[in-house]
Amino acid sequence: MNAVREDQPLRPAPTSGFPEWLPELRMVELGWLDHIRTTFEAYGFASIETPSVEALDVLTKKGETSQEVYTLHRLQADPDDDSDARLGLHFDLTVPFARYTAQHFNDLVFPFKRYQIQRVWRGERPQAGRFREFVQCDIDVINVDRTPLYFDAEMPRIVHEILTALRIGEFRIHVNNRKILEGFFTGLGIADPVAVIRALDKLDKLGIDRVARSLSQDLKLDDAQVASCLKLAGIRGEDSSVVEEIRGLGVHSDLLAEGLSELAFVLDALADLPRGSVIADLSVARGLDYYTGTVYEGRFVEFPDFGSICSGGRYENLAGAFIRRALPGVGISIGLTRIFAKLAAEGRLPIGPKSPTQVLVAAPTTESFAAAVRTAARLRGRGIRTEVYHQPDKLQKQLRYALRKGIPYVWFPPTEEGAGHEVKALDSAEQVAADPESWAPRVGVVGATEAGG
Amino acid sequence: MNAVREDQPLRPAPTSGFPEWLPELRMVELGWLDHIRTTFEAYGFASIETPSVEALDVLTKKGETSQEVYTLHRLQADPDDDSDARLGLHFDLTVPFARYTAQHFNDLVFPFKRYQIQRVWRGERPQAGRFREFVQCDIDVINVDRTPLYFDAEMPRIVHEILTALRIGEFRIHVNNRKILEGFFTGLGIADPVAVIRALDKLDKLGIDRVARSLSQDLKLDDAQVASCLKLAGIRGEDSSVVEEIRGLGVHSDLLAEGLSELAFVLDALADLPRGSVIADLSVARGLDYYTGTVYEGRFVEFPDFGSICSGGRYENLAGAFIRRALPGVGISIGLTRIFAKLAAEGRLPIGPKSPTQVLVAAPTTESFAAAVRTAARLRGRGIRTEVYHQPDKLQKQLRYALRKGIPYVWFPPTEEGAGHEVKALDSAEQVAADPESWAPRVGVVGATEAGG
Repeated sequence: MNAVREDQPLRPAPTSGFPEWLPELRMVELGWLDHIRTTFEAYGFASIETPSVEALDVLTKKGETSQEVYTLHRLQADPDDDSDARLGLHFDLTVPFARYTAQHFNDLVFPFKRYQIQRVWRGERPQAGRFREFVQCDIDVINVDRTPLYFDAEMPRIVHEILTALRIGEFRIHVNNRKILEGFFTGLGIADPVAVIRALDKLDKLGIDRVARSLSQDLKLDDAQVASCLKLAGIRGEDSSVVEEIRGLGVHSDLLAEGLSELAFVLDALADLPRGSVIADLSVARGLDYYTGTVYEGRFVEFPDFGSICSGGRYENLAGAFIRRALPGVGISIGLTRIFAKLAAEGRLPIGPKSPTQVLVAAPTTESFAAAVRTAARLRGRGIRTEVYHQPDKLQKQLRYALRKGIPYVWFPPTEEGAGHEVKALDSAEQVAADPESWAPRVGVVGATEAGG
Repeated sequence: MNAVREDQPLRPAPTSGFPEWLPELRMVELGWLDHIRTTFEAYGFASIETPSVEALDVLTKKGETSQEVYTLHRLQADPDDDSDARLGLHFDLTVPFARYTAQHFNDLVFPFKRYQIQRVWRGERPQAGRFREFVQCDIDVINVDRTPLYFDAEMPRIVHEILTALRIGEFRIHVNNRKILEGFFTGLGIADPVAVIRALDKLDKLGIDRVARSLSQDLKLDDAQVASCLKLAGIRGEDSSVVEEIRGLGVHSDLLAEGLSELAFVLDALADLPRGSVIADLSVARGLDYYTGTVYEGRFVEFPDFGSICSGGRYENLAGAFIRRALPGVGISIGLTRIFAKLAAEGRLPIGPKSPTQVLVAAPTTESFAAAVRTAARLRGRGIRTEVYHQPDKLQKQLRYALRKGIPYVWFPPTEEGAGHEVKALDSAEQVAADPESWAPRVGVVGATEAGG
């Protein structure tokens, strides 16, 4: 029963790529999560969660991400037993959502609007700045046969509202439409437009010269085709006038016309947002194969090399892979951990207290302890987060505990017959008489989260 | 771009042991999670989350659970690359919490009171009723050198408050103290008291006869010792009078006396709870090696064979394994998924609506759609969860959508100049004039969760 072990302690170290936060940062993150959830629900999205694992054939059916999947194995499994070998941790929330929608098709009401806030995993090699586990906050709509374009515009609107309220700093949501890219490249007479999309998706990483070389050498485009592709990818604009600019390039196809009309619809529907917060950006392609129309990618203005802070798009076939129904959808995902960790590293988060407690009830003596416990219960019953100092001790020590945890008030139950309660605000050091049945903390003093009902 | 794939769909099936819920059940679960969190915070516990994985040597340092761990492997890893092979999914939240406390020792204020609501994984063989992934809701306190006994009593009080409010049905929290068991067996002259604790822990599973045989045959106890052990394990009581009953068995040791005094303290501190909600039960041992004092195990009264719904206890060495400090702690864990899934299976959960939306704004025509979007934004701005019907359509279809999703109100913006807004309550079919700047839903009509600040 000796509390100190004799053998060498393990000296735990953080595992690279698996972030964790101190309580005062976690409290900020919790406030973010609450705000995100409240906003998703304000727009009528219902919460679901899916298991952390999916069958491997579900995870690897579509997309290029199969090499990033973590598979599960029981530590003590028989070598012959491969019952777990077909399970992998999900790498995003879109594929599990599509599987969920197909599986529970008969129990859902369509359009099915869901939000999903969960951890996802990427089986990356450990390296600085790469998360192997992180939280994503997704909204998606899936409908039978046809999902109204209205939702293509609602997705970036909701994310814009959330990220603005979270004060993450200036950001832009870049919007494009894969039909424009595919239709434009087809109109140019290119046989494999998807290969060109993939090549152009690397503009940020490789730069214009290397992408141009790849287009002409690997994909055998002629010089005029390469020039047109790069011209298209260079187009940016804050409103639907970009549509005219693209038409001005003189390329024609039905798919291109369809994509342009969809992009114009989305930009027009978002015209009331502050100028520059959503921009058309014809270089955005999103690597994943499953996007077929509108695509989004949000970026910090201040950290242009940081990459995506939110992303998503429209997909036709994802849920349809699991059921003989047409179930097109559109969605967007906030990269919560990426954004949060970046702002934490930049020292830009308003760090809160180390405890949600609003009131510490002091218990100076053994005799007063029971009264302190009763007082705490009364305050708690009125919705005030209250703890009793856990043992009779010097008042100085109890005040110090409150200060160090960021607890704003210390409460003193009466110490003698006929005396009253008093409460001390630690920011002003002011101590006043208080009635446990009516006293309330000042608004704004409380740094902690306001959770639940 | 055709939405139906030509090849054979996958027909997704649920993965045994990995539960997921429909939106209307998830909404109930979310309400539970909110309530649990709010109560934990009301008592001053701060939120933390730890990664889903820990280094394998952290997970397997203590306890008997190493064979239930899932390890991670990258799907496409080189056979020579074992960089991930040392990572396992955590099987509980106590070991990660102990590691966290040791690792962040210098940044924490003690006593460190944290709650942690996360998924845990057990690498079990697939079998009916066994979860391989489930959510636990834990509170623990760790302090330097000494953790006041006050917390041993606070743990079951908080859980009692929560489970009562969640209306899970009648339950009892069984309390014991490992010092009593160890001290009693030592006092009987038994050389390996821990082996006896392990044997008695199987009373529920094996029955009294098989345990008695094991005590005498495997552990070589004489008949008087076996009889005393079984007599002790048979003691139950609703208050600290059990302490006298145990003393009456005539066994003596310092550790036994210490354990009895601790048990009496805990029972006395909880004497104000409804009679029978916390009972002393000398058969409770908790399998895990790391408990050293008070232990808890909650059970449904109605489903006696169901096993534990919450559990925990006091541990001395857990965090101390990672740092050269004495960091004793005490904690308790609510088996959220176990309880929730059981009550869902029994049809005992009050199923809510399929959507958090309070108001559906109708959009009968293309001309009225923009006005509907503006009206929805106004209601949302006042904190009312509102969605616009996603496309102009027949009113009948829009009402049907609201009814099927459990949305309580449908809003009609004015259809002509000078007319006013109207709102229809779907439960009463009453339709009245309403001002979007002042109207509010009736309290109690709203089935959805009340999240966030």
